[in-house]
Amino acid sequence: MISFASDYIAGAHPKVLEHLTKTNLETLSGYGTDTYCESAASKIKEACGCPSAEVFFLAGGTQTNQVVISTMLKDYEGVLCADTGHVSAHEAGAIEFSGHKVLTIPGVDGKIDAAGIKKFADKFYGDDSHEHMVFPGMVYISFPTEYGTIYSKAELEEIYKMAHAYDMSVFIDGARLAYGLESYKADVTMEDIARLCDVFYVGGTKCGALCGEAVVFTKCNMPAHFVPSVKRRGALLAKGRLLGVQFDALFTDGLYSEIGRYAIEKAEELKKIFAEKGYRFFINSPTNQQFIIMSDDKLREINDKVTYSFWEKYSDTETVVRFATSWSTTDEELEYLRTIL
Amino acid sequence: MISFASDYIAGAHPKVLEHLTKTNLETLSGYGTDTYCESAASKIKEACGCPSAEVFFLAGGTQTNQVVISTMLKDYEGVLCADTGHVSAHEAGAIEFSGHKVLTIPGVDGKIDAAGIKKFADKFYGDDSHEHMVFPGMVYISFPTEYGTIYSKAELEEIYKMAHAYDMSVFIDGARLAYGLESYKADVTMEDIARLCDVFYVGGTKCGALCGEAVVFTKCNMPAHFVPSVKRRGALLAKGRLLGVQFDALFTDGLYSEIGRYAIEKAEELKKIFAEKGYRFFINSPTNQQFIIMSDDKLREINDKVTYSFWEKYSDTETVVRFATSWSTTDEELEYLRTIL
Amino acid sequence: MISFASDYIAGAHPKVLEHLTKTNLETLSGYGTDTYCESAASKIKEACGCPSAEVFFLAGGTQTNQVVISTMLKDYEGVLCADTGHVSAHEAGAIEFSGHKVLTIPGVDGKIDAAGIKKFADKFYGDDSHEHMVFPGMVYISFPTEYGTIYSKAELEEIYKMAHAYDMSVFIDGARLAYGLESYKADVTMEDIARLCDVFYVGGTKCGALCGEAVVFTKCNMPAHFVPSVKRRGALLAKGRLLGVQFDALFTDGLYSEIGRYAIEKAEELKKIFAEKGYRFFINSPTNQQFIIMSDDKLREINDKVTYSFWEKYSDTETVVRFATSWSTTDEELEYLRTIL
Amino acid sequence: MISFASDYIAGAHPKVLEHLTKTNLETLSGYGTDTYCESAASKIKEACGCPSAEVFFLAGGTQTNQVVISTMLKDYEGVLCADTGHVSAHEAGAIEFSGHKVLTIPGVDGKIDAAGIKKFADKFYGDDSHEHMVFPGMVYISFPTEYGTIYSKAELEEIYKMAHAYDMSVFIDGARLAYGLESYKADVTMEDIARLCDVFYVGGTKCGALCGEAVVFTKCNMPAHFVPSVKRRGALLAKGRLLGVQFDALFTDGLYSEIGRYAIEKAEELKKIFAEKGYRFFINSPTNQQFIIMSDDKLREINDKVTYSFWEKYSDTETVVRFATSWSTTDEELEYLRTIL
Repeated sequence: MISFASDYIAGAHPKVLEHLTKTNLETLSGYGTDTYCESAASKIKEACGCPSAEVFFLAGGTQTNQVVISTMLKDYEGVLCADTGHVSAHEAGAIEFSGHKVLTIPGVDGKIDAAGIKKFADKFYGDDSHEHMVFPGMVYISFPTEYGTIYSKAELEEIYKMAHAYDMSVFIDGARLAYGLESYKADVTMEDIARLCDVFYVGGTKCGALCGEAVVFTKCNMPAHFVPSVKRRGALLAKGRLLGVQFDALFTDGLYSEIGRYAIEKAEELKKIFAEKGYRFFINSPTNQQFIIMSDDKLREINDKVTYSFWEKYSDTETVVRFATSWSTTDEELEYLRTIL
Repeated sequence: MISFASDYIAGAHPKVLEHLTKTNLETLSGYGTDTYCESAASKIKEACGCPSAEVFFLAGGTQTNQVVISTMLKDYEGVLCADTGHVSAHEAGAIEFSGHKVLTIPGVDGKIDAAGIKKFADKFYGDDSHEHMVFPGMVYISFPTEYGTIYSKAELEEIYKMAHAYDMSVFIDGARLAYGLESYKADVTMEDIARLCDVFYVGGTKCGALCGEAVVFTKCNMPAHFVPSVKRRGALLAKGRLLGVQFDALFTDGLYSEIGRYAIEKAEELKKIFAEKGYRFFINSPTNQQFIIMSDDKLREINDKVTYSFWEKYSDTETVVRFATSWSTTDEELEYLRTIL
Repeated sequence: MISFASDYIAGAHPKVLEHLTKTNLETLSGYGTDTYCESAASKIKEACGCPSAEVFFLAGGTQTNQVVISTMLKDYEGVLCADTGHVSAHEAGAIEFSGHKVLTIPGVDGKIDAAGIKKFADKFYGDDSHEHMVFPGMVYISFPTEYGTIYSKAELEEIYKMAHAYDMSVFIDGARLAYGLESYKADVTMEDIARLCDVFYVGGTKCGALCGEAVVFTKCNMPAHFVPSVKRRGALLAKGRLLGVQFDALFTDGLYSEIGRYAIEKAEELKKIFAEKGYRFFINSPTNQQFIIMSDDKLREINDKVTYSFWEKYSDTETVVRFATSWSTTDEELEYLRTIL
Repeated sequence: MISFASDYIAGAHPKVLEHLTKTNLETLSGYGTDTYCESAASKIKEACGCPSAEVFFLAGGTQTNQVVISTMLKDYEGVLCADTGHVSAHEAGAIEFSGHKVLTIPGVDGKIDAAGIKKFADKFYGDDSHEHMVFPGMVYISFPTEYGTIYSKAELEEIYKMAHAYDMSVFIDGARLAYGLESYKADVTMEDIARLCDVFYVGGTKCGALCGEAVVFTKCNMPAHFVPSVKRRGALLAKGRLLGVQFDALFTDGLYSEIGRYAIEKAEELKKIFAEKGYRFFINSPTNQQFIIMSDDKLREINDKVTYSFWEKYSDTETVVRFATSWSTTDEELEYLRTIL
């Protein structure tokens, strides 16, 4: 049985694990105050070209979204995102748990654009009774999106400008940032990402770590007393080193980019296999998640040979499924996949 | 200057005020334990044909929606409603403040139907990862809706049945219940309403009271220790008599129905005036709220003679506006309106 | 049966009711934007000697405490008060419902002092791990306190100074403000109150209104977009006039002071009666609430003649009970009380 | 520089790390559905002698307390604990963030007892207005406590019985469970713990893991749909294996007990050193945390040779400090400590 079910089916990238092992017996202070957190933060700030950035490590994606969004929004604000945005659809109401509404606009292939933001804001501020409505206080986008698509630099620039024109900050969910930046289609760098938002996070869990996301406040805007705010959301790890050491490894010698690049290469190979076999793609994804339309008959046939993710029903006899690659994808797996399609 | 801006532009119906005045110096116990709350509850239970119902008085509509929804939902559940539902669009995030998500399905003229509920629930339960999503735990509908439309008995029966088939309760927001029940188009009674939901509220604020909504739990399902749950939401009035006395008046000698009937009559006259003058209606509303498409030029012309509510832009030169009637609408106002249209 | 159970056993003061009646048929805009809210706010600002104050009307005390505290505190802050403070003990967790902790220090006769605040703050900031604790962000005091006691001007000045020295704001709960200001022992005016806090509220419910509290932000510090913040807490009344008209009456021709003065007079007479009959006082209260130690036998004897409030057990055979006066207390009631003690 | 600052200054116990390394490349499903989570749960259930127990893995202690308490309490309930309880004092308001109040009773050496619970409950239910107060719905105790002390079996039996007599559940915070169970003074086993509570957690972070706590519902009482409730609190790890694998190692061949035993041995040696040098203990702790009263002069002297935790000021010239042992404490460290005291 091989698996393309997700990008979190294996443990840590060997170099990450090696760093954990090597530092395991060192005595380090707790709660993110250790030297590895510091070192990792420095490397991330350098990678962002943003020396004044503030970096904070958290354990998982939903947690990060909840912490960032609910500490940055004002009481009466909500977060604006695509209807397919992860915070809207697949976090079991984590934003609402923190008291804030998720406001949605229709996405196209998982993406929103400046025009959509403007339309929403104009309607909102044009409404006489908008003081009885939830103010849009932040734009949330994911890079890559939940559908594997990415934003161009021009799109990000327009979104950033438009959001700020309406007093909204921009938060980029980079759960799979490595795959977005290393996509053959990407025209942005991590420096661009840092520049074109107010806060983003560098995904670790889905990009080679056992767990961990690095939140980067890029505009000297980390909420005051962020530690107690994190703590009261249950999100402060005692052994912060677990996060610091992993990100220190991920940002040493270009490992994070290497992981992204490798998975993208494998994804391209995977796409080619599906294409050669005549399968249709549900969406044209330039990153590590591929969405393929398959007949339910075929799926039944391969179910004991490979695992993948159910995405949605496409027709009465067809289903959209997701195949994801990662640093752990092997050529053997791809070859075997070819034989069973 | 006359006003059709809303159904809450005047104080209390004279008979309500009279009852407040008459009982003003009586010594009564606090927090809803007084004899008028008891009497009003009895009369409402009788009007519902539901002797086992439990009645609780709250001060306003948004408060009532928050209290009812957040005390009846389980932790992991959200409330399902039309995208135009009041709890979704116009309560500044009151449901989210209580930690719960509002899930929406497209409404038609403010209404949803059993098929829409089924479609949502099937998609939800059919999704492999629905444990990462917000469970639909309650269906919220308003009667009449935010667009003045009403549900037929058959529609309510289907919604109730479908909701329960998917483990959802049904909550009917009756902020304007009097106008819904007395609509010439209505085929339901208050008994039907009580039977076809798990909880509903009898709107007072918009139907003749100074403030107040009567929540009716119709299936012996009032949450245990409801008083502290209400109190901690800041919704327990010390002088509960203010609510009890008003509802006691509203449910004496058929006043509540009379108020509804009168406003509906006036709304029909108002519709006739607009129709005769050649205006188009945005929606065909059989209740006390009328939505008319007017040119911005015309609106500017009448702006210093009559107040109404902005609803939404219809085109570059036209706007949808709302004219509402109530117990306080006079024939003189209607006549004057005719002269300025 | 006579009643001294509380200061909210009667309806509205006749002059308040009269104003409601007189204005009942006027057409007024909703949500606190009407002319009576405006007029009442002006009169309150004048009474406070604080023309730049911002006034907002809410319906009840617990609601007001929740709205004010949770909109003024930062995410990581809690509110500091006496262990007997209303927000700590008797609001069913309304502050916690809004996500904030109530931090307590021991009170003496319901009061706290600057030294207690300093001790708490020094311990907090002196603790190496205070970033893992709830920051004290606001001092809450009630005037009069839950035990009927009041603060002197000197005490308030010290509290205000000390709170600000530690970055805390001061919130004065004036649910019974009229009785505090008119106490024979008071050396503060409403102007002093306004000056010596950041926000306070003028209690209506317990001082002659049917409902209503007037929040006064005295330092140009009303939270931005307060309306949606109020709305999402379910606390925005559609017919805001109900509150505006009542406060307009309360602040016309000195009615608010008159109500306070009258109740204080009656309380002094009541005290005299109890003293003459040889009863002991649990506390020396200079306001309208009196706490008397009575034998359980005596209580059983008078239980069908007078109502009062249970306060707490004093000994196996004695209980502390509360007798409260108000504008509605009559000489006849006091005379009758004398005969049954 | 040596460190006794806490029991989370090192990484994972070597055997835990080894298991992570060995399983690193295995393909496993996400979100706690993998075989190691299953295996670890089985082993924990066996260790508890409770085959029907339900086990769920979370990442950290504060998170666990928030998730367990807020999913088990009813809306109107709070959690009762010692005033020194971790959830009351040192979690930055995590319980309040979830909407619930922490109710406190005075602890003695960090412990509460059945009599204290009874006193609180009797006062609560004896109060006429307890429906305006927060209901005590759960008793929270820590084993060992924040002061290193432990409960005897008899004490736990009484607490459990008393709590249930007043409709409260019992939750045991076992962040340092290994040290409590292996204390020379302990007369309880993990089976006793499971039997004498409704839910407890087996601490990983402070007992040899990199992170992780295993929640054990012992009475078939895991809240329905616990996964979405965990997810919406941001507490569901994608790579649940990280927790499963670690607990699988901790519960193989008695490692968890071994870790506890070793740290207790080292703590006893440490106590002996302090005692021989004439230091006074702030509290008589039979577990791995030792609280010593030291002069500020002495502390300044050793500050560049050893790290410890500040606990609280004892007098103007003395401070209570905490020295903690763990699996990573070495004989060399103890010897060096002896030389500098």
